[in-house]
Amino acid sequence: MKPESFLPAARDKLLFTPGPLTTSLSVKQAMLHDAGSWHFEFNAVVRQVREQLLAVAGLPRESGHEAILLQGSGTFGVEAVFATCVPAHGKVAVLANGAYGERMVQILRLARIEHVALRTPEHAPNDPAALDRLLAEDHAVTHVATVHCETTTGILNPIAALGEVVRRRQRSYFVDAMSTFGAVPIDFAAAGIDFLVSSANKCLEGVPGFCFVIARRAALLACEGNARSLSLDLVGQLKGFEKNGQFRFTPPTHAILAFVQALKELEQEGGVAAREARYRRNHAVLIESMKALGFAVFLEPGVQSYIITSFYRPKDPAFTFDEFYRRLSEKGFIIYPGKISQANLFRIGSIGRIFEPDIRALLAAVSETMKEMRLVT
Amino acid sequence: MKPESFLPAARDKLLFTPGPLTTSLSVKQAMLHDAGSWHFEFNAVVRQVREQLLAVAGLPRESGHEAILLQGSGTFGVEAVFATCVPAHGKVAVLANGAYGERMVQILRLARIEHVALRTPEHAPNDPAALDRLLAEDHAVTHVATVHCETTTGILNPIAALGEVVRRRQRSYFVDAMSTFGAVPIDFAAAGIDFLVSSANKCLEGVPGFCFVIARRAALLACEGNARSLSLDLVGQLKGFEKNGQFRFTPPTHAILAFVQALKELEQEGGVAAREARYRRNHAVLIESMKALGFAVFLEPGVQSYIITSFYRPKDPAFTFDEFYRRLSEKGFIIYPGKISQANLFRIGSIGRIFEPDIRALLAAVSETMKEMRLVT
Repeated sequence: MKPESFLPAARDKLLFTPGPLTTSLSVKQAMLHDAGSWHFEFNAVVRQVREQLLAVAGLPRESGHEAILLQGSGTFGVEAVFATCVPAHGKVAVLANGAYGERMVQILRLARIEHVALRTPEHAPNDPAALDRLLAEDHAVTHVATVHCETTTGILNPIAALGEVVRRRQRSYFVDAMSTFGAVPIDFAAAGIDFLVSSANKCLEGVPGFCFVIARRAALLACEGNARSLSLDLVGQLKGFEKNGQFRFTPPTHAILAFVQALKELEQEGGVAAREARYRRNHAVLIESMKALGFAVFLEPGVQSYIITSFYRPKDPAFTFDEFYRRLSEKGFIIYPGKISQANLFRIGSIGRIFEPDIRALLAAVSETMKEMRLVT
Repeated sequence: MKPESFLPAARDKLLFTPGPLTTSLSVKQAMLHDAGSWHFEFNAVVRQVREQLLAVAGLPRESGHEAILLQGSGTFGVEAVFATCVPAHGKVAVLANGAYGERMVQILRLARIEHVALRTPEHAPNDPAALDRLLAEDHAVTHVATVHCETTTGILNPIAALGEVVRRRQRSYFVDAMSTFGAVPIDFAAAGIDFLVSSANKCLEGVPGFCFVIARRAALLACEGNARSLSLDLVGQLKGFEKNGQFRFTPPTHAILAFVQALKELEQEGGVAAREARYRRNHAVLIESMKALGFAVFLEPGVQSYIITSFYRPKDPAFTFDEFYRRLSEKGFIIYPGKISQANLFRIGSIGRIFEPDIRALLAAVSETMKEMRLVT
């Protein structure tokens, strides 16, 4: 037994999912403290986190952006942008090619916000030319929303090209960068992003408990008075931070302390570029080895992200996903099913505190499991 | 230096606040694991937590109640009840005698839900007779909402007497029991509660990250179709748990693992009755010793909870709350200011992983601080 096996976290199964992800032990150990949410020391931590997020985004202080932390999962952040930013007579065009685009549509429907969905098939990226035509025709549309990496399949959408259209057509632009921020470089200025949402427990390798919105300050403050929700009011949340440094409502103090450590470890690794390189390498090894085992990738290489990859399930009738999953789980590896619309797929993530040897260990387990199940791919 | 000083949590300041609170080291250590939010083992944990919450509430399985966990702070849970349960033409009567009642009003205003506030002064409990008159007159009111312990002052509201009125007048009843559930016995049947909200990081001594709603299943399912929000849709959240055991959106996995341990420690302590006894003792020692130091209590004893207590600030011009707070903080004790409406008060909580010796240590520090500041009470 290796010494690190005595550490609690060393016994955990490795997570090859779209999140929550495997995090470092030191990130988790940062949660061994109870912070007072009203205390000046904690307020200073929150201020520091908000500033560091802008730095990760490559936004200098004078760029006029704000990072706003919000309790809840990433979906809460997506809903918060719509609930805060779309005026009563606004209309949102949603670019959808998977479950997260459809979730935006569902949020808008329940919030009684006018919207139109511009769909492409799940294997095809959002279409900037189609968006251009829509915006030329439908003058009621005030906002455009897209999902950077649609983890339904792992497809990467062209946020810069879309942003060029949105800017030319003078609409407001919202990017769900949940599973890319911190590992896929995003040029805010070039893409003309007004609002971006991401989460603590994705590529920044913190633990789940809150999400964050990075917004152009002027664009956000112009939304005052639109809010349909108190909990999800981003203008109110920003004003709370600026009034006394505090969250308006109880923050997940432990998750935030973990995030401070996660941001430190991002910096120690070498920032976004180094994290991108590690995830790219994880992904390359994954694809190459899975292909060698006979698995086929769902997406074309040109649109496939290095975040998560969808593989076709083997056609062999001996294959059932449940058994495959369970056998891998027993070996210490958690993979992910396909979304309902893609029942013939399964997914493997390459993000989180996971390194090339972990990917190779997973693939050895996949190979062994195939032998156990006598599978032919 | 005592040996436990080497433990990370032993260095933390003790929190005498309305929450987040001091938690045990073992509760925090339960967070040293990364759980897969889709994994069957984690689903089993969530199911167990939901069942244990009903047991803490004293509700047998056949009572037809459900415990629904929701990401975010307690306020998210309060808003979720309104956003899910009040139909389009419903109207809510809010009993308000502090900031949390007023917050309900604010939620309803932003959600464009009809409402009426029935206010009493901050030192006076909600008035069941006034509610009775209101419900007799205003037939548009469909729901009544109150705050069990209004931590603005520490006042305890008469939820059973109010509930009797609500039931007789055949309305729906919602209790915010954020800071009482788990330490103040609540008789669901006698009070006729339809929806109750509380939080992981209050008297159950977990860490912040999620709240929970305990609802009559029939009352909740009757709300289907009302939802104004996807994130805060409690019917959707329940259906998610029942479909596949999962949260619809990423759960705060670490906070939930901590909660499992916190519930175990509640049971080890002797359940709600034992926790009530400890908090009562904390409160009694606090009041007695603060009075001995010359501090006066804001509320009459008959309406004062054992959760949190408001004290008048000394009239001595040498007293500033900021200095008093800072000096106590330097000694390792975090107290709480008054709410804005009560600038002449400060508050001290008696809940969380805090025992009589901790209260006595706090009071020794208060006494020493008064000497340092040469205060006369």
